[in-house]
Amino acid sequence: MAKRKVYLDHGATTPLRKEVLDEMMPYLTNSFGNPSSIHSFGREARVAVEKARQQVADAIGASPNEIIFTSGGTEADNMAIQGVARALSSRGKHIITSAIEHHAVLDACQSLEKEGFSLTYLPVDKYGLVQLKDLEKAIRPETILVTIMFANNEIGTVQDVAGIGKICRSRGVYFNTDAVQAIGQLDVNVQEQNIDLLSMSAHKFYGPKGIGVLYKRQGVKLKPIIFGGGQERKFRPGTEYVAGIVGMGKAIELAVAEMETKTAKMRELRDYFVAGLLEIGGVTLNGHPQQRLPNNVNVSIHNAEGEALLLNLDMEGVAASSGSACTSGSLEPSHVLRAIGLKHEVAHGSLRLTLGKDTEREDIDYTLKVLKPIVARLRKITGTLVRE
Amino acid sequence: MAKRKVYLDHGATTPLRKEVLDEMMPYLTNSFGNPSSIHSFGREARVAVEKARQQVADAIGASPNEIIFTSGGTEADNMAIQGVARALSSRGKHIITSAIEHHAVLDACQSLEKEGFSLTYLPVDKYGLVQLKDLEKAIRPETILVTIMFANNEIGTVQDVAGIGKICRSRGVYFNTDAVQAIGQLDVNVQEQNIDLLSMSAHKFYGPKGIGVLYKRQGVKLKPIIFGGGQERKFRPGTEYVAGIVGMGKAIELAVAEMETKTAKMRELRDYFVAGLLEIGGVTLNGHPQQRLPNNVNVSIHNAEGEALLLNLDMEGVAASSGSACTSGSLEPSHVLRAIGLKHEVAHGSLRLTLGKDTEREDIDYTLKVLKPIVARLRKITGTLVRE
Repeated sequence: MAKRKVYLDHGATTPLRKEVLDEMMPYLTNSFGNPSSIHSFGREARVAVEKARQQVADAIGASPNEIIFTSGGTEADNMAIQGVARALSSRGKHIITSAIEHHAVLDACQSLEKEGFSLTYLPVDKYGLVQLKDLEKAIRPETILVTIMFANNEIGTVQDVAGIGKICRSRGVYFNTDAVQAIGQLDVNVQEQNIDLLSMSAHKFYGPKGIGVLYKRQGVKLKPIIFGGGQERKFRPGTEYVAGIVGMGKAIELAVAEMETKTAKMRELRDYFVAGLLEIGGVTLNGHPQQRLPNNVNVSIHNAEGEALLLNLDMEGVAASSGSACTSGSLEPSHVLRAIGLKHEVAHGSLRLTLGKDTEREDIDYTLKVLKPIVARLRKITGTLVRE
Repeated sequence: MAKRKVYLDHGATTPLRKEVLDEMMPYLTNSFGNPSSIHSFGREARVAVEKARQQVADAIGASPNEIIFTSGGTEADNMAIQGVARALSSRGKHIITSAIEHHAVLDACQSLEKEGFSLTYLPVDKYGLVQLKDLEKAIRPETILVTIMFANNEIGTVQDVAGIGKICRSRGVYFNTDAVQAIGQLDVNVQEQNIDLLSMSAHKFYGPKGIGVLYKRQGVKLKPIIFGGGQERKFRPGTEYVAGIVGMGKAIELAVAEMETKTAKMRELRDYFVAGLLEIGGVTLNGHPQQRLPNNVNVSIHNAEGEALLLNLDMEGVAASSGSACTSGSLEPSHVLRAIGLKHEVAHGSLRLTLGKDTEREDIDYTLKVLKPIVARLRKITGTLVRE
């Protein structure tokens, strides 16, 4: 088999789709107006922004006036968490989250802890699932927000979002969810799932980088974290990234339209991939076997070092990850893998392989083919080291 | 003269340069990696980001490790002001700014006032200049930050930034400047001008929208306002908008390289334009006659309503503005025009016309030609209304 380029890091970022870039091009060339300007150049840009707002709203069952464009998922997460905290601190200072959130959520929560907010970090089971009964018990009269991610970015586990939403709604507590990995892969409907705030990022579903959305249900109290002009109804001032907004609108429209067919294919490939990986031996699957993102594979390869696996795969043309791209370079094992009970050394030998809509069986076969000798070689080294 | 399209709103936004878009294209197509990923796709993106960081640093006399990429000028302004306030609140809670700042600065300051910070809003003279002696008097032992814009976005007045920087440095107070309108039009050197923090926005100098920079001098204490992954040394987490960063690097390189020739041409056209406008009669220039942005014209057209002027110009193909695009739609007259002493009704009849590097004499001639009958018509209406 000849060497090929296999990109299996779609959880980190996805390529920009040709159809999306085509839609963006006018706003990177002639239609360059500032949407706040009242002349023809400005109005043209404004129309484009509002069309995209409608596309995003339609994709998640929201209204356009509930969509706030942000610079990405991290900013949206921070806006939701810091924004609710500042708006409702006089009512209560307790926030509930989970132990396996993305750092954008965890670090925003920890910054509030330093300011005197009280945080509950719900544990997860060995599959990474939050237990609804734990959530019910954790809600107190002073709880103002529950923030639990839709699907985990490392191990792919999908929470019972509708169940969480129902509890939050019945107890009168806002429910925020980081849906960065969910859009285009799972059914997201803010009405049916009783979601009050939701974050997304376009570059995770074949849209451009540098653009995201915070969905904020009408009436939800929120203070901005950035102040300035009147853009995004003052919730997010600053000149709009028009081309990015247009691209995000197109990307989410396509992602939702194609979701059923694309995810069916990915699910099949994913399971084929997992089966092949388990065959290597000394390999365990992390995350829930069924309740997981259609594109997510996360395995621990025992007695092999994660970083070395990645570098060796890269040399063979395969792009993979050891966890979240946002914490690459960190020597700490993933907080997610520790939360599901993995030992330090097992967590260190973990690989995340995230498929894309265009991933083919040949990509998986090639990856399995090159991975086997790499694992054997690394295990030999580890064995030597252990004996010494 | 045939009807033409004349864009005179470069203060609101500029078109993306062809050379800049060309540089961005690889990162909107094949080179789509996440710079935090350690595989080849990621490393390719990382190299591009770091090259752009060097380009931005070189343009303002900074080091690359002093450049933090943000989503734009508004975010950078907020990071500087909120960030210093949170980092130094135990040392002091007094901040000095001017009455004519952009709303990104003013509103960030006002949010701190609500939290118990004490603010001094320095007045300006009739040209929009802050007096250095006012600044010297305003600095107190508990002053932690002076934030005064480099050049005003509405009336174009350029402050004595080096003078302000010298005072701040000698008094041991951080100096932050919103340089959004200055880059590519004025000499900006953070060393010579003793600037500690500086904001910029790429789309104001023919770069892409959705990307900006906060320059933070090494050692300046700052707390982030957004939390998450490790990007931008944790000062600004979130996946980088790689194409935008690359575009910003190229755009600032070009802007600085061509500044001398482009601004000489703009200055000449600007003065020609002002002379033509004053000839109409009942027209006064706002801002400093010499110490102003090379591309900025701001006039009050007495007895004519600003919004009506804009709409009529737009119908003739001329894009202009009544002030900051960020506050379009607001019925309040500009705080800048009020600060330089304009009466309510005079402020309401003001026009901002901002030239670009490609504006030609024919554009100015056309604008003057169509403006004259518009003014005459509107004055007739105003006259009628006054008489009734």
